[in-house]
Amino acid sequence: MSTTTSPVASSIILTGDRPTGPLHLGHYVGSLCNRVRYQHEYRQFVMLADAQALTDNVDDAGKVHRNVMEVALDYLAVGIDPTVSTIFIQSQVPELAELAFYYLNLVTVARLERNPTVKEEIRQRGFERDIPAGFLAYPASQAADITAFKAALVPVGVDQVPMIEQTNEIVRRVNRLAAREVLVEAHALVPEIGRLPGTDGKAKMSKSLNNTINLGATADEIRAAVKKIYTDPLHLRVQDPGHLDGNVAFTYLDAFDGDRVGLEEMKAHYLRGGLADSVVKARLEACLQELLAPIRQRREQFGRDRGQVLQMLKEGTARARETAARTVDEVKDVLGLRYF
Amino acid sequence: MSTTTSPVASSIILTGDRPTGPLHLGHYVGSLCNRVRYQHEYRQFVMLADAQALTDNVDDAGKVHRNVMEVALDYLAVGIDPTVSTIFIQSQVPELAELAFYYLNLVTVARLERNPTVKEEIRQRGFERDIPAGFLAYPASQAADITAFKAALVPVGVDQVPMIEQTNEIVRRVNRLAAREVLVEAHALVPEIGRLPGTDGKAKMSKSLNNTINLGATADEIRAAVKKIYTDPLHLRVQDPGHLDGNVAFTYLDAFDGDRVGLEEMKAHYLRGGLADSVVKARLEACLQELLAPIRQRREQFGRDRGQVLQMLKEGTARARETAARTVDEVKDVLGLRYF
Repeated sequence: MSTTTSPVASSIILTGDRPTGPLHLGHYVGSLCNRVRYQHEYRQFVMLADAQALTDNVDDAGKVHRNVMEVALDYLAVGIDPTVSTIFIQSQVPELAELAFYYLNLVTVARLERNPTVKEEIRQRGFERDIPAGFLAYPASQAADITAFKAALVPVGVDQVPMIEQTNEIVRRVNRLAAREVLVEAHALVPEIGRLPGTDGKAKMSKSLNNTINLGATADEIRAAVKKIYTDPLHLRVQDPGHLDGNVAFTYLDAFDGDRVGLEEMKAHYLRGGLADSVVKARLEACLQELLAPIRQRREQFGRDRGQVLQMLKEGTARARETAARTVDEVKDVLGLRYF
Repeated sequence: MSTTTSPVASSIILTGDRPTGPLHLGHYVGSLCNRVRYQHEYRQFVMLADAQALTDNVDDAGKVHRNVMEVALDYLAVGIDPTVSTIFIQSQVPELAELAFYYLNLVTVARLERNPTVKEEIRQRGFERDIPAGFLAYPASQAADITAFKAALVPVGVDQVPMIEQTNEIVRRVNRLAAREVLVEAHALVPEIGRLPGTDGKAKMSKSLNNTINLGATADEIRAAVKKIYTDPLHLRVQDPGHLDGNVAFTYLDAFDGDRVGLEEMKAHYLRGGLADSVVKARLEACLQELLAPIRQRREQFGRDRGQVLQMLKEGTARARETAARTVDEVKDVLGLRYF
C-alpha cells in the first residue's frame, strides 16, 4: 500500500470490463496498465461485467460466458495479481443486482433518458424505441457496482463521466434518506492518455471493425496488423515530408515506445521527408513484439490450467460478495427492509 | 389437497399484498376469502410485497415496514394458515430482485410504457415524467415474483390482467432462449365478485379516502362506519321507494349477508318504499359485527406475540427462498451465467 497522505490513499477503486471479446492494446494503454499500478496503491476490485454485457447481448449469451475466461486470462497475463486485486464475476455477486433493483426507485425514467452516456450508446446501438429496459436501467446497475464496494475512485473514459454523476445522485439520495453517510461519493479517474485509435485510423478499436491488436495476438498476427496499419495517406514517396497527425503508427509508438529520444529523432526525420513508412513500421513492430511476447506467454501459461483460473475467480467473487452483502444490508436498513 | 383431475389441481398459486396499510373488507371479499379456500386446493405462496410498495413509497419506508406486520396479522386473523400457505416477505427473498434485474433485459422500455396497468397507475399517481424507474420496471418485478415460484395461477383484478400478459411474454422469451420449458405461463384468476366500493360510494376503498372498514376495526368503528354508509340520496322519506343501484349498504349486504332469502325480502320492501335506511343499516351492522368479531379477536391474539409472527414469517421466507433460488439458477443457466 502507498504511504502517501493524499486523501485518496488507501481508497477503494472499482474497475472492470464487459466480457464481450478479448482485450486489446487499447485496453492495455487505457486501463490495464493503470490497474497493475493501482493495485498496490488502492484496494482494487476488478469486475468481469457479464450481467452488464447481457443488457445488449441477451441473444448471444454464450459469447459473454466464453469471454469471461478470456478476459480473466488477459488480466492475469498483464499482471493484475489476484492476491492483491479482487477479481470477480458480476453475475455471481447477486447483491449487485439486488442493489440495482432498489436504486431504480431512486431515479426517474426521465433522468435515465437524459443521461448523455445512455443517450449516446442508445444512438450508437440503433435501439431507437426498442431499448431493452435493462439497458436504460444500467446507470442504476453501475451505481450499484460502484457503491457496493464503497469505491471512491472509478477509472472511466471522459464519455462515462455522466454515469459517475448519476451514481453520486443516488449516493446523496441514500445518504439523505439515512441522514448519515452510508454510501461513498465516487470520483471519475479519467486517464491522461486518450483512447487508442484502431489500426485503420478509426477512433474506436473494435473487434467487429477488425482493427484491434489483441493482447493474446501471435507474432504473425502482430506483424500482419502492423503491416497494414494506417499511416499518412499523403506520404506517397519516401522523400516526401510525412505527417504525424492521425498517423496511427506514430500514435502507437507514442504509447508504447520507451526510447523517447530515438522516437523524437524518427519523428523529425519523417516530418522532413526521406523516411519510409516501412522503417517506422519495423520500429513499431519490434516494440509491440517485445511488449506482447511475455504477455502472450503468461496468457498461454495461465490458459493451460483454466480450472485454477476459475478457482481464482471463485475466491475473488466470494471476497467481493462479502463486501457487497454488507452494503446491501446497510441500504436495506435505510429503506426499512430489515425484519429478522 | 384437492383430488380433482382439473389441469390446475395441485398447481402453484402466487398472491399477496402491498403492505401500505391495514387490510379491509374489500381485501376480504376480493381475495382473502379465496386464499383461505385456495390454500387447501393449491400450493399457495402469499407475498408481503414490501419491495413493490417501495416503488412509490421510498420517502415513507417506515410505513411499509410497519405494515408488513399489520398485514401478516390480518392474514393470520382471517385464517390463512402458515403451515399450509407459504407467507413470506418479498424483500427478504433477494432472488426475486435478481430475477427482475435479468428480466429487464427481456422487455423493452416501449413495451413497459405501453402496459395499460402501468399507464393507468402512472396516471392515478400523477407521476407524469417523474416516474421512478422502479415503478416503470415493476412488470418485470411482478414477472419475477410469479415465475420464481412457477405459479400457474395468479388471482388479480381485471385491471391487472395486462401484467399477467407481460409476465407470459417474458416466460415465452426465456423458454425460447432455453429451447425448453424452464418457466411456467401464468393464468389470471379474476374473482367473480367485483371490487367492493368504499363506504362513501366511491369505486375504490382507500385509507386516504377514509372510506374503508378495516379487518381489525373495533365494534365502535364498525358502528360509526355503517352509520355514515352511502345509501340512496333520493330516499328522503321512509315511505319513498328506495333504489338499490349504487346503494353501498345493499352492496355490502350482498357480499356479507348469509341469509339470502331475508335479504331479498328486505330489498323488495326497500324498493317499494316504507323501509327506513336505519333498518337496513342495523341489519348490515349486525352482519359485519358478526363477521369481524372473531377476526378481530384472532388478530389481537396473534398480535400479543409478534415475535412468534416474525418467526412464522422467517420460516415462510426461508421456504420461499429455496424455491426462488432454484428458479434463479435455472434462468441464469439459460443466460449463460453459471461458471463454478
